[in-house]
Amino acid sequence: MVAEHTSPNVTGHHSVDIQTVIPNDTNNQTKRNKRMNNNQMKLHGFSGGIEGGERRPLANKTFNRQVSLGTGVTVLGMDKGFKDTCNSNRDGSTSLHRSGTSLGRLRDGVGGGVPRKGDFSIFRTKSTLNKQNSLLPSRELDPHVSGLMQEDPVNKSVPAGRYFAALRGPELDEVRDSEDILLPKDEKWPFLLRFPIGCFGICLGLGSQAILWGAISSSPALSFLHITPIISLVLWVLALAVMIFVATTYSLKCMFYFEAIRREYFHPVRVNFFFAPWIACMFLAIGLPPAFAPARLHPAVWCAFVIPVFALELKIYGQWLSGGKRRLCKVANPSSHLSVVGNFVGAILAAKVGWLEVGRFMWAIGLAHYLCVFVTLYQRLPTNEALPKELHPVYSMFVATPSAASIAWKAVYGEFDAVARSFFFIALFLYISLVVRIEFFRGFRFSVAWWSYTFPMTTASLASIRYAEEAPCFFSKGLALGLSMTSSTMVALLFVSTLLHAFVWRSLFPNDLAIAITKDKNTSGGKQGKKSTKKTYDIKRWAKQAPFSLVSSITKSLSVDKDSDGHLTT
Amino acid sequence: MVAEHTSPNVTGHHSVDIQTVIPNDTNNQTKRNKRMNNNQMKLHGFSGGIEGGERRPLANKTFNRQVSLGTGVTVLGMDKGFKDTCNSNRDGSTSLHRSGTSLGRLRDGVGGGVPRKGDFSIFRTKSTLNKQNSLLPSRELDPHVSGLMQEDPVNKSVPAGRYFAALRGPELDEVRDSEDILLPKDEKWPFLLRFPIGCFGICLGLGSQAILWGAISSSPALSFLHITPIISLVLWVLALAVMIFVATTYSLKCMFYFEAIRREYFHPVRVNFFFAPWIACMFLAIGLPPAFAPARLHPAVWCAFVIPVFALELKIYGQWLSGGKRRLCKVANPSSHLSVVGNFVGAILAAKVGWLEVGRFMWAIGLAHYLCVFVTLYQRLPTNEALPKELHPVYSMFVATPSAASIAWKAVYGEFDAVARSFFFIALFLYISLVVRIEFFRGFRFSVAWWSYTFPMTTASLASIRYAEEAPCFFSKGLALGLSMTSSTMVALLFVSTLLHAFVWRSLFPNDLAIAITKDKNTSGGKQGKKSTKKTYDIKRWAKQAPFSLVSSITKSLSVDKDSDGHLTT
Amino acid sequence: MVAEHTSPNVTGHHSVDIQTVIPNDTNNQTKRNKRMNNNQMKLHGFSGGIEGGERRPLANKTFNRQVSLGTGVTVLGMDKGFKDTCNSNRDGSTSLHRSGTSLGRLRDGVGGGVPRKGDFSIFRTKSTLNKQNSLLPSRELDPHVSGLMQEDPVNKSVPAGRYFAALRGPELDEVRDSEDILLPKDEKWPFLLRFPIGCFGICLGLGSQAILWGAISSSPALSFLHITPIISLVLWVLALAVMIFVATTYSLKCMFYFEAIRREYFHPVRVNFFFAPWIACMFLAIGLPPAFAPARLHPAVWCAFVIPVFALELKIYGQWLSGGKRRLCKVANPSSHLSVVGNFVGAILAAKVGWLEVGRFMWAIGLAHYLCVFVTLYQRLPTNEALPKELHPVYSMFVATPSAASIAWKAVYGEFDAVARSFFFIALFLYISLVVRIEFFRGFRFSVAWWSYTFPMTTASLASIRYAEEAPCFFSKGLALGLSMTSSTMVALLFVSTLLHAFVWRSLFPNDLAIAITKDKNTSGGKQGKKSTKKTYDIKRWAKQAPFSLVSSITKSLSVDKDSDGHLTT
Repeated sequence: MVAEHTSPNVTGHHSVDIQTVIPNDTNNQTKRNKRMNNNQMKLHGFSGGIEGGERRPLANKTFNRQVSLGTGVTVLGMDKGFKDTCNSNRDGSTSLHRSGTSLGRLRDGVGGGVPRKGDFSIFRTKSTLNKQNSLLPSRELDPHVSGLMQEDPVNKSVPAGRYFAALRGPELDEVRDSEDILLPKDEKWPFLLRFPIGCFGICLGLGSQAILWGAISSSPALSFLHITPIISLVLWVLALAVMIFVATTYSLKCMFYFEAIRREYFHPVRVNFFFAPWIACMFLAIGLPPAFAPARLHPAVWCAFVIPVFALELKIYGQWLSGGKRRLCKVANPSSHLSVVGNFVGAILAAKVGWLEVGRFMWAIGLAHYLCVFVTLYQRLPTNEALPKELHPVYSMFVATPSAASIAWKAVYGEFDAVARSFFFIALFLYISLVVRIEFFRGFRFSVAWWSYTFPMTTASLASIRYAEEAPCFFSKGLALGLSMTSSTMVALLFVSTLLHAFVWRSLFPNDLAIAITKDKNTSGGKQGKKSTKKTYDIKRWAKQAPFSLVSSITKSLSVDKDSDGHLTT
Repeated sequence: MVAEHTSPNVTGHHSVDIQTVIPNDTNNQTKRNKRMNNNQMKLHGFSGGIEGGERRPLANKTFNRQVSLGTGVTVLGMDKGFKDTCNSNRDGSTSLHRSGTSLGRLRDGVGGGVPRKGDFSIFRTKSTLNKQNSLLPSRELDPHVSGLMQEDPVNKSVPAGRYFAALRGPELDEVRDSEDILLPKDEKWPFLLRFPIGCFGICLGLGSQAILWGAISSSPALSFLHITPIISLVLWVLALAVMIFVATTYSLKCMFYFEAIRREYFHPVRVNFFFAPWIACMFLAIGLPPAFAPARLHPAVWCAFVIPVFALELKIYGQWLSGGKRRLCKVANPSSHLSVVGNFVGAILAAKVGWLEVGRFMWAIGLAHYLCVFVTLYQRLPTNEALPKELHPVYSMFVATPSAASIAWKAVYGEFDAVARSFFFIALFLYISLVVRIEFFRGFRFSVAWWSYTFPMTTASLASIRYAEEAPCFFSKGLALGLSMTSSTMVALLFVSTLLHAFVWRSLFPNDLAIAITKDKNTSGGKQGKKSTKKTYDIKRWAKQAPFSLVSSITKSLSVDKDSDGHLTT
Repeated sequence: MVAEHTSPNVTGHHSVDIQTVIPNDTNNQTKRNKRMNNNQMKLHGFSGGIEGGERRPLANKTFNRQVSLGTGVTVLGMDKGFKDTCNSNRDGSTSLHRSGTSLGRLRDGVGGGVPRKGDFSIFRTKSTLNKQNSLLPSRELDPHVSGLMQEDPVNKSVPAGRYFAALRGPELDEVRDSEDILLPKDEKWPFLLRFPIGCFGICLGLGSQAILWGAISSSPALSFLHITPIISLVLWVLALAVMIFVATTYSLKCMFYFEAIRREYFHPVRVNFFFAPWIACMFLAIGLPPAFAPARLHPAVWCAFVIPVFALELKIYGQWLSGGKRRLCKVANPSSHLSVVGNFVGAILAAKVGWLEVGRFMWAIGLAHYLCVFVTLYQRLPTNEALPKELHPVYSMFVATPSAASIAWKAVYGEFDAVARSFFFIALFLYISLVVRIEFFRGFRFSVAWWSYTFPMTTASLASIRYAEEAPCFFSKGLALGLSMTSSTMVALLFVSTLLHAFVWRSLFPNDLAIAITKDKNTSGGKQGKKSTKKTYDIKRWAKQAPFSLVSSITKSLSVDKDSDGHLTT
């Protein structure tokens, strides 16, 4: 307490911090407690420690740094370490007041204002981490680091239910207000940590556009447009460049922050985006401009891109089937289509490399799982926690799979017959039913994830071109043209937005909060219980000295425990 | 308050009027509360009003009539006004005893036995209502009418869950015993209000019969019967006549009681019947006797009849997908097939007008949604509140969609191949599995809704004729003949029943209770609460003579306020 | 009655009994009550009797035997008889202490040491039972037996929920620890009672192998192997022999223990195995070696084997649809595939007898219901109580249906086209996804049910042979060969295991506990209610004379009613 305003350094830090920053208060018993009630980080080892400290104002400031140093790391041990920290702090004391919604900032103070990277090390690849640790000057950190090492297997298995509990939004990418996260919210994280798997969506969008313009320029149905194949070529090269950049960057993330990638993998929505890189590669292979392409691609291409998809499918469909927290009726959400559409794209690529039967195999797998996903999504089971009520770009995924199925059928069975038509028409209907609800799509903040939602439109355009080839008439050609233009416009707009966000506003990659959720809920249930019992207690004590009206007003505002603190400090 | 019983006029008003009613009343807690427990209409503004009257036993039984006059309208204010009314009633007392399950009856007394139509104005179209109101002699009503106007948006959105809560039966057409309704149960409502959307089922039944007999007379498979096409012609004309009558009547309802139609539209089962008029029109167009028909119908016919269906589908399938109270896993019930079968009938009509590709489009949409509905219905999810346990004519809907899909496939793809066969066989199996449970179908009261359940049988017959054409053999022809005869017999029986009910027993259109449910449950929860508090009250009285230990145990049981009542009464 | 406690023999019997047997204790108020709390059999008529007895310690151990004699039989009347027994025992008393986990043993005592079969008579066919009863020497038993007779209709309808509540394991074949069963656990039951319907799985396995080897020897795709058709012939004869043996045995069970069969029929998992005999017969008919076979089988064969399947389907699919406890979303489990696969096998047989259209009919039914089962299983609805989290041989069923659908399509439509291919590929994918999880399959105890899980592998092999015929290449032939060898190896291993278990270890048929569950849960709910009210009462009485600490400790330990007993006994 007293400590706090002796050390301006620390106080400064405190105030930098967070949304709920509180003006420096002198008789700060009550106010601070109010803050405590507002932000829920009391369970953290960190703030726990601090609170413990607050109770002994006489004690000793002198330990502050050490304590805060420790707590910065104890965070990793989460609630396990909590009680110990609390206890240990009983005889030390701290005066650092932090609202606690971010945990990393504090540590910067430790290094004397120089930001320390140690913060983000929880998401580091183990080997990297080990190396780095060996370079650390202070040996005291070791026990904590080894604690971190032990925590890893636990950390690894952030259960699916946890993601649903801690996150919200159709892509589960926003942290609920009640939740705390492991990394500082008020600071820009390292670039790699802010680089989500969803970035491969850009490759999906550009790759599919390259294919679309290739088809436009070569399709007899749209030959009246006289589109030059150079557009396709340019797009393809652009897509390739972006692919290389994104893949390289993500590989670096993989090298340095493997834990972060593991958390993305366990994220029930984002796991589907792990199909994106491979699908993007397939798009590049399918859209290979005739200039570069051999008559027929080598099957090794297929193997290279489809085998990872296949392995991932075995894993994910197995999770659906074998139940548990990741059963289909729980995790189904529009982005699940990504895990299905890979089969159809794989089938198209198989046809390109001449492996028709393999393509048919992929198509059949796709069909079976599309059926399950489609029916499950349409039913909107109440168990389905991931499905947002409001519409969202993510819904455009509904269009991708039947479009791809339609194209793939034509590719592997050679004719655009009733099956291909039916899938195309289903895609078309879903497209229409989203378009008429266009107003629901407005008002969503741009994010790099939007890219993933362009390729369904492009796929639908491609399918409509195939359909126009099959049933050439004014209407079908118009449809193909209209859809193609819409999707290209959308991609162009997104491209510009992305460039603006990336280079002008520099806001393309906000902190990727979804990967930094804590492993366990700050068991607010039990805490609440305690708090409420405490509350009643406090009300009573406080009531003795306060006029009744005040009591009642306070009771309403739920800010009760301040009073006991007040007693202790005064 | 005071005003109220000085001016009898005002008393009338008081009860009319709603939300704002009345604070202050001094004594007499107990009696009134007891009364509250007995009749369930307390939530009504209406009964509130009456109760208001009841509170002044000395004052004014004389006001009763006036009060009841007003209340007919107060009903609209629903529960809002309830608590106020209650409080205001503290100082009156009652002599009027009403069970409260119907609200209109009382009103008859007002006019001296002459029923007043004002009652039903809540379901009036707004413009009509305004006009009517302008004709009313007393200007005092106006504020209330404008109150009604304000209520409209609320009224509009009777939530889906409310229908499930208040109604029962496989068609959600019976009001639960615990529920109150807005209109008088013991009085015949205006004809238009009793004319449900289900009446278009008659057109479905007759129109499909006309097609069936046309097919029987023209099909090579049944040519050995030498049926004259005149039967078909007669049926068609009859169907057309009925169609015109029903459509005209329903248009009138639409004009005069648009609110009632809105309530039908929000009814989770009945909304599916909004497809019926258009499907019936399509049947008429498909069954157009060759005498009247051009070689090929003009596509405008298709547009006229299918576009409304398509728009409705976009709306309803969208509701399934976007979740909320009307998500598929909640509202799925056999009559959902009606919303799917329109696609297949539309596909057949499209083939008739020569738009094959459009027909295939309709077919694909139908397939996708049939799949969802079929699987959902078969699973019988526990969330599925609308599905009755016992079988019911409504189950015959199961047969309609695959039959129609089979015929439509033949129409749009030109051959009765594996797909058409499979759908036909699925329909056949479902038919058989309903027939062997025939005993479950017995004992249901006739209603005009039964008509909707004849067209599945007719569609199955039609599909069996198509099948007999494709695979002519003794068995298939026998099947076609048997099914056709069964369906025709069924329709004939229904036709006679309908005539009898309509003209002899005059019971064809009972009060359509389902549309008159209240917007909110009479919050029985609260009721229970009160009751239990009463109970505890008794415990307390008893506590006076019991040792302290007992008292303390009771204190725990949350029963505090009654005791004050006890004091007041004793 | 009296007889019982004169004969020490009975006491001997008593002690034989059960895991938790407790030595006769003298000052047994407290101890016994503790035990009571531990094992949950208090609701049993049996223990009811004991409890009644405990209350009167002074009275009379002398009546003990008599009481226990009665209770041994009252068990049959279950809870009906409970209260009577309780009351009647109030004035008698018992000292017989039984843990109550098995109820049948005691009865053996009646016959004076000679095991009486009467025990198992509850599962007897009624007529048999009547006959046997007339042979009983002691007339006293009659009332109970007639009580049993009255119980039958009740017994018949062990509700589906009961099976889920009382059993566990993926095949619902293990009794939960908390559950009591009707027959003695510690004794070998009569052979027929231990002979489950699952034994027909052996016929499925061998019959399908015969077909497989027939296909291997005759298929052009595998002609390079030069397999002699004699293998197939031998297998077929073996399959026929086993079929005759199993069918005969089960017929005997049907004759003598019809009640047991009824219980198997109501078992939500095992009911699917009632399809097995007919499918096995169809396999035999399909695999009929050319040596014995006419050019074309007589359709009567089809009728004989498929009509029972069809009737059963009407029943079971109807249960799915009509809701209640056996709705699809509740009972769906991998063995539900058995109820679907019959359609496809029936379609193949129909093709064999030349009834193509009938085959297509079967195929369509199969498709519709396969769709429902597949989607439902993949969704893993939370209502789905039967699906185990861990994998299990039962999952291999997933492979059976699409394989059979593939073969059947080829049989009834004449070509291995896109549909057949798609089903085959789906089967193949599911096969792969099970194989990669092979480690989950380990560690399951061998049981005769394993046989049912071989035929999916065989069916997949058959489909792969058909596929290799259609698309002959190195890979497809290799696949066909590999799958065939795997399935044959599996069958060979199982065959040896079965022989070992049957003749060496004599453990092939353990007690079939699943059929002996009690009709009602020991309604702990109601009991708890009673107990708790009693508890509070007792606490109070006791509190008056006991120090506070004691009270609190007792309150915690939930063992309260003993005290009242204490009062009574002291």
